[in-house]
This record gives sequence, structure tokens and C-alpha cells, in this order.
Amino acid sequence: MTGKVNVGLIGYGTVGKGTAEVLINNRLTILENTGVNVSLKMVADLAIDKSNLDELLSEVEVVTNNASDVINDPEIDIVVELIGGYTHAKDFIIEALNNKKHVVSANKALFAMHGTEIFQAADFNGVNVLFEGAVAGGIPILRVLKEDLAANNIKEIFGIINGTANYILTRMEKEGKEFKDVLHVAQDKGYAEADPTFDIEGIDTAHKIALLASIGFNTLIPFEKIYVEGITNIKQIDIEFAKKLDCKIKLLAIAKKHEDDIEVRVHPTMVPDIELMAQVDGVFNAVEIIGDMVDKTMHYGRGAGGKPTGSAVVGDVISIAKDIASGCTKRTPILGFTREYTYYYPIKDIKDIQSAFYLRFSVVDEPGTMATIAGILAKYGISISEAMQTDERDPGEAVNMVFMTHKTVGRMLHAALEEIDNSDVIRDQTVAIRVKELV
Amino acid sequence: MTGKVNVGLIGYGTVGKGTAEVLINNRLTILENTGVNVSLKMVADLAIDKSNLDELLSEVEVVTNNASDVINDPEIDIVVELIGGYTHAKDFIIEALNNKKHVVSANKALFAMHGTEIFQAADFNGVNVLFEGAVAGGIPILRVLKEDLAANNIKEIFGIINGTANYILTRMEKEGKEFKDVLHVAQDKGYAEADPTFDIEGIDTAHKIALLASIGFNTLIPFEKIYVEGITNIKQIDIEFAKKLDCKIKLLAIAKKHEDDIEVRVHPTMVPDIELMAQVDGVFNAVEIIGDMVDKTMHYGRGAGGKPTGSAVVGDVISIAKDIASGCTKRTPILGFTREYTYYYPIKDIKDIQSAFYLRFSVVDEPGTMATIAGILAKYGISISEAMQTDERDPGEAVNMVFMTHKTVGRMLHAALEEIDNSDVIRDQTVAIRVKELV
Repeated sequence: MTGKVNVGLIGYGTVGKGTAEVLINNRLTILENTGVNVSLKMVADLAIDKSNLDELLSEVEVVTNNASDVINDPEIDIVVELIGGYTHAKDFIIEALNNKKHVVSANKALFAMHGTEIFQAADFNGVNVLFEGAVAGGIPILRVLKEDLAANNIKEIFGIINGTANYILTRMEKEGKEFKDVLHVAQDKGYAEADPTFDIEGIDTAHKIALLASIGFNTLIPFEKIYVEGITNIKQIDIEFAKKLDCKIKLLAIAKKHEDDIEVRVHPTMVPDIELMAQVDGVFNAVEIIGDMVDKTMHYGRGAGGKPTGSAVVGDVISIAKDIASGCTKRTPILGFTREYTYYYPIKDIKDIQSAFYLRFSVVDEPGTMATIAGILAKYGISISEAMQTDERDPGEAVNMVFMTHKTVGRMLHAALEEIDNSDVIRDQTVAIRVKELV
Repeated sequence: MTGKVNVGLIGYGTVGKGTAEVLINNRLTILENTGVNVSLKMVADLAIDKSNLDELLSEVEVVTNNASDVINDPEIDIVVELIGGYTHAKDFIIEALNNKKHVVSANKALFAMHGTEIFQAADFNGVNVLFEGAVAGGIPILRVLKEDLAANNIKEIFGIINGTANYILTRMEKEGKEFKDVLHVAQDKGYAEADPTFDIEGIDTAHKIALLASIGFNTLIPFEKIYVEGITNIKQIDIEFAKKLDCKIKLLAIAKKHEDDIEVRVHPTMVPDIELMAQVDGVFNAVEIIGDMVDKTMHYGRGAGGKPTGSAVVGDVISIAKDIASGCTKRTPILGFTREYTYYYPIKDIKDIQSAFYLRFSVVDEPGTMATIAGILAKYGISISEAMQTDERDPGEAVNMVFMTHKTVGRMLHAALEEIDNSDVIRDQTVAIRVKELV
């Protein structure tokens, strides 16, 4: 098995550069590991100054400002799309697929929102589309679900899949600072973008769990059905209480498969310290998968960055290159399941999902306050596993009272909190954070 | 892509049963995920009573006491060898390969010791041989190295890859018991075999790191060159000192690639608590891989057991079944590198390897003892980063004095300890445990 496969790259930002670096600097390694000569033939980016190429680009045969040059070059076998966003990226990908080129991308937003159209175009044209780099950066996770764990019924997938949010939460925990202050540090260090909305509001995490859940549960997740809650309301005081409860607050993506429906949700979560997931700090990501046969596995590594994501992108390029060289295409269905066996499960409303909760009440420090709150919780069938109160207080000042509940349905908690927040004892809106049960 | 692929299974012990369970109970799942109908056609085991089949076996078309029935059945495409051991297993595998059947196995000892012969027979016959289940049970790790991380130069692989040894060390740590007592518990619970030699002496761990290092570094590891030290000499007192030093003692397999040579070794290791690896407890396994592009990734899960290992074995069966159905074979080289690019690196002698060390001296509690020891260490260029002594002591009794050293070459430490152990101040042989540097 030998052969030559030509790659064309569209988009020369952080991940584009990382991908070029992997393809160029490790070209011999790739040949050694596969027997295939994978060549980066062309790089396209609007912003490249052709009269002043960097060291990497000067090793590429053709450098262009026009994506069409890549898409229409008959010698290019694989088009790598790394410009991100929806509009142009989607047009380029569909056009490349229609030109019978295989596509590799790391565009989670596009695949989570418009995946179906892209997958159909690939199927129709008999070519492949892979996007390992779209989820959890360099960590092999999509191929693990599609191939290594293909003998399992996947029951649950959860994890920390946004490095920016995890970096912010980790620094809040280690340094005792508030969200806003840490966000600014993260922006200064380049770990958060100027507009950090997608990362801190959980949207990026939701894009990724949509892809993981689709592949794991053999279904297509309508993105708008995912419950998404970001980390912008996390306060230092909740992180301090979490410490006392031997927990960390993490932005978790959670997908669970039940008999007749599925859960897909993103929210800050109290993760007990004894879970490995609680120890995943900083910009690192981790995904835990629970299969009926393998039980639990965890996959950890860098969730972003040019070279780690480039490693995943080139892993996909290699997979397609080996298919081309060994004369088989689409050996594995794009999403890891065949079209005939695509399931359409209802997605559970967040209010119907059971969780244990951390509740922090800002209350007037008067006799009977705890009785009032506990009474309302009891009325809604919510039982308490642990209660805690801040020590220092000035007379008449609001104090924090923390309750950990047993599992309760979201709907009941919502109703109970509405009643509690309208009562006389409450000074500020109650904070509710879900608690990860041990698996 | 549709097709039918017939599987024949030799060996119906724990992993054999787990594999049969995955193939039979998840047959529809496998079809859904691949489009291929994978059928367990035949099971062979000397011990099966054909007049009294269990529920699983009664669903298998042919049950036999004769492995040759599987190997010679022209309808069988993939032979799964799960009897373990060297002699018969090797004969069966070579015969199956010569009959142009693909082979899947979980036999780490055989592949670590006689892999070359098997790989050559597979190459010669144009068929594939996979053994994901041989290393780290259900955790996808070999395919991750061969495919997902194929764009990387692998620099280091290390991990906890023997569940029995890790279970014993974890219980020693949690319960304060000595090695022998915990071993008996492990045997009673079925976590250690009646003859636990391979597990507690590190031999099983060495078999597995040999396979990981071969795949990661594109080389063939001569098994006898691996330094192997088991956990039978680990004392409770060393575990207690480890706690004070914020470390856990773990049986680590470590493989490192240098410019011109490699390290492959197995020994008890002090792992700092802040490393995720230190939190891998009980029968769980974890492997950390460091690649030049992806940086570090960690892969965690159940390292043994029928169903988890069965998940990995059937993952291999699925991989070959997809190759057959899509008309390509040997899309990926058996060890993840091509024959033309097989490297032969010298393996570093353990005495030439640099490590930081934990040293526990059993000494006479007299003035000048520490000066004597520190003086001899200094003579050999060994510098100390931390020193500690047990509190309670009776006059004239031996006391424990612990030194943590900076990095030093094994040869120097060996010489220093020989001189120290021959001095008057020492009561008992000095304990030396390597310390994992932070990566």
C-alpha cells in the first residue's frame, strides 16, 4: 500500500497553522505510520500576504487568497476547512463535496447546526467528511465512539469540553477571584476571545455535546432542544461552598440515553472531588463515556490550540488518505451509524429531569428562616441531605444558607424556588446548581 | 456497504464469555453502527460440556471442543483467540493465519514474546491481526496510537496497566494494611489469581508496555531488555511516607523516546497527587501518551474483566469486518508503522537512566547519622531536595530517615546505596523508589 494524497487547506488561523505544521513537519512520520505520502499542496486564506510568506507557507506548492482554487483543483483529494463560522464555510464544504472531494473540518458550530445537509451531500457524492477536531481538540473522541466502542450501546456521555470556561472556573477556585476579573485575565492571555459569549454562555459546549450525543446515540440532535446554562452567574461564594462540600464547580455537558428518550444539557455542575472529572483543570478537556459493555472510560487532553487540534485534523486526513490508498471509501458511516438505523428520540425537557441540587439562599438571619424554607421545600417533596450556613454575620445582614437536596424533578424545584423567592425571608435570588451523581 | 462476516472463537474463559456476550447480545447494535452483520458462528473450548450449554452458547451455531474445527472452517473469516498462554495459542494463531483467516487476540504475553513471528505470518498471508484487548482491557489505546495519533511523533507513554497490582496498592493505601494481607483479600475477591506472580512482579505490565512502546516508537522491543521491578517489597511505612510527601505509590510502566535510544521500564513509582495518574484507583487502568503535536492525552477505564475486554476484542472484530465488507484489507499496518520504517533503537540500561528517588534508610538514631548518609550521597553527586524522619522512637531502636533526591543517574545511586548499606549506621536494607517527574 503506497500512494500519494493531496490536501488543500482553507483557513490559516490558529488551527490552520497548527494543521499545516503537523502536515509539513511530520510528513515523514505520517508516511512511516501509514505508507501513504500525504502532501499539503495548497493553502488558501484571504489574509495571506503572498509576497511575504512565513516559513511553513513557503514550503507549500500553492498559496492563494481564493478558496475556489482549492475546491476546484482536480489534483486535490481532501479539502480541510478551518475558517469556522456558518456561511462561507458551509458553501465551501458543500462545493468541495459536490466536486467529489473528501472534507475534514473542525467547525463544531457548523456541524452542530447544519450537519444533516453536509452529511447528505457527502453521502450523495460518495465521499467522506470527518470532524474529529471539532470536539475536545486533540483528544481522540469521535473515532473512539464510532469505531473502538462500536460494540457498545452508549448510555451516557459527559465532560468538560470548553477550555475557556474551565480555565476561568479553575482560576476562580485557585485564586479566589470573581468571574469578571478572571475573564479579563483569560482575555489578556488569549484563552478567551474578545467576544467570549459562545464559551462562557455554554453555546460552544452545547455544539460539541450535540455532536457527541448524535454519534453516541445514533440520532440527530436538534440543537435548539438542548438546555444551555453558562457560567456567568457563578460567584466566588458558591465556589467556596463547593470546597466545603468536597466538590468543584465545572461546566459540564451531559447526554444520557434512556429507554424512550434522551437528555442533552449543558450547565454548571457540582462535581464531587473523588470523581476524576473534578481534577480536570485549566484549559484541559475530558470526556467520560459509559457503554453497556466497556463500563466507563475517560479521555483527557488539550481541548484547543493549534497543534493539538491540528493533530486531530490530520488524524482525520490520515484516515481518509488510508481509505483512498487501500481502495475503500466510507468504511465507517459518517456519524458511526447507518442511515437505516437512525433513531429519532424525544429530548427530555430540563424541567422533567431529576437532579440533586445545591441551593444557596440569601436570607434574613432570623429565627424560623430555615423552618420556612425547609417547609416550602418539603411541600414540593424535596428532601434535604445537608445544610450549611456562613459563620460571620452582622445583625440584620443577609446571610447565606446552603442546602443540598436529594434528587428531585426540575419542575418541582422550580416551583419551590419561586415560592421561596417570593417569601419575606429571602433577600436575593436563590442560586441553584445541579450536583453530579456518582457513576 | 452490507455483508456478513463469520467469527469463530477459541477459548471460553472470562474474556471468551465476555466476548461472546458482546457479539450475541449487541449483534443488532454492531449492525446498526457498521452496516455489517457480524455473526458468532462457532465457539471452541476443551472444557465445554456440549450436553449442557449455557444460555449464550445455545445461541451459537456450532459449539466444539476442538480448536481445529474453527481454524479449518472455510466459512469463518475471523478467528478470535482467547485461551492465553504461549504454546497452543501460538500454534492456533499461526495456523489460522496460514488458512488466510484474520486473527483477533487479547494475549499480551504471546504478542510481547513472539509477536514478530505472528506479524510476519499475517503479512505473508495478506491478513490482519489485532490485539486491542491485550493492553488496558476495554480502554481504546492501541488503535488510538496507530490511527488517531498517527500524525505525532510519540515521545512518552506511561501508565497503570495492571489492575491487580493497582488494586493491591490502593487497598494498602486506603486501609493501612501490608502487602501480604491485601494480596489474600484480592485473591479471595477474584482480583488476583492463585499464582499472582505475573501481576505482582510486574511481568504482565512489562508485556503490555512492550506492545505500547513498539507501536508508539515504530520499533520492536526485545522483552528481556525491559527493566522490571514488582510491588512485593512495598511496605506500609513507605505508603505512609508517600502520603506525607503528597504522593501515591503506583506500579508504573514507562516508555520514553530519546534522540538515539529508548527507555522501557516497570517499577513502583512515587506519583505526585496533583497528577491525574495518582488518582487512578483500584482495578482501573490509565495510559498517558505524550505526542509532539497533541501534547499529553490520558485514557482511562477498566483494565480487565470479561465485558470490558470483550468490548475491545469485538472492536477489533468490527474493524476487520468493516475492512472485509468495504473491500480493503490491512488499511493500517499491524503495529501502526510500515515495515520499511521499522527502527531498532538501543534500550537504555536502567543504571543509565536519570530519576529522582525516594530513599528510606533504617538507621541507628545517633548524632551524626544524617551527616554520614548525606556525606556519602554528596560524594556520588546526589543532592537532596527534602528530608524527613519518623517521630516516635525508643532509645537505641532503628528509626526511618527519608530523603528525596534530585535527579541522579541510577548507576550513581546504586553505588552510593551500596556504600551506605555497608556503613555502621544502617540497620536494614535501604528502600529506593523512583519519583515521577511532573510532565
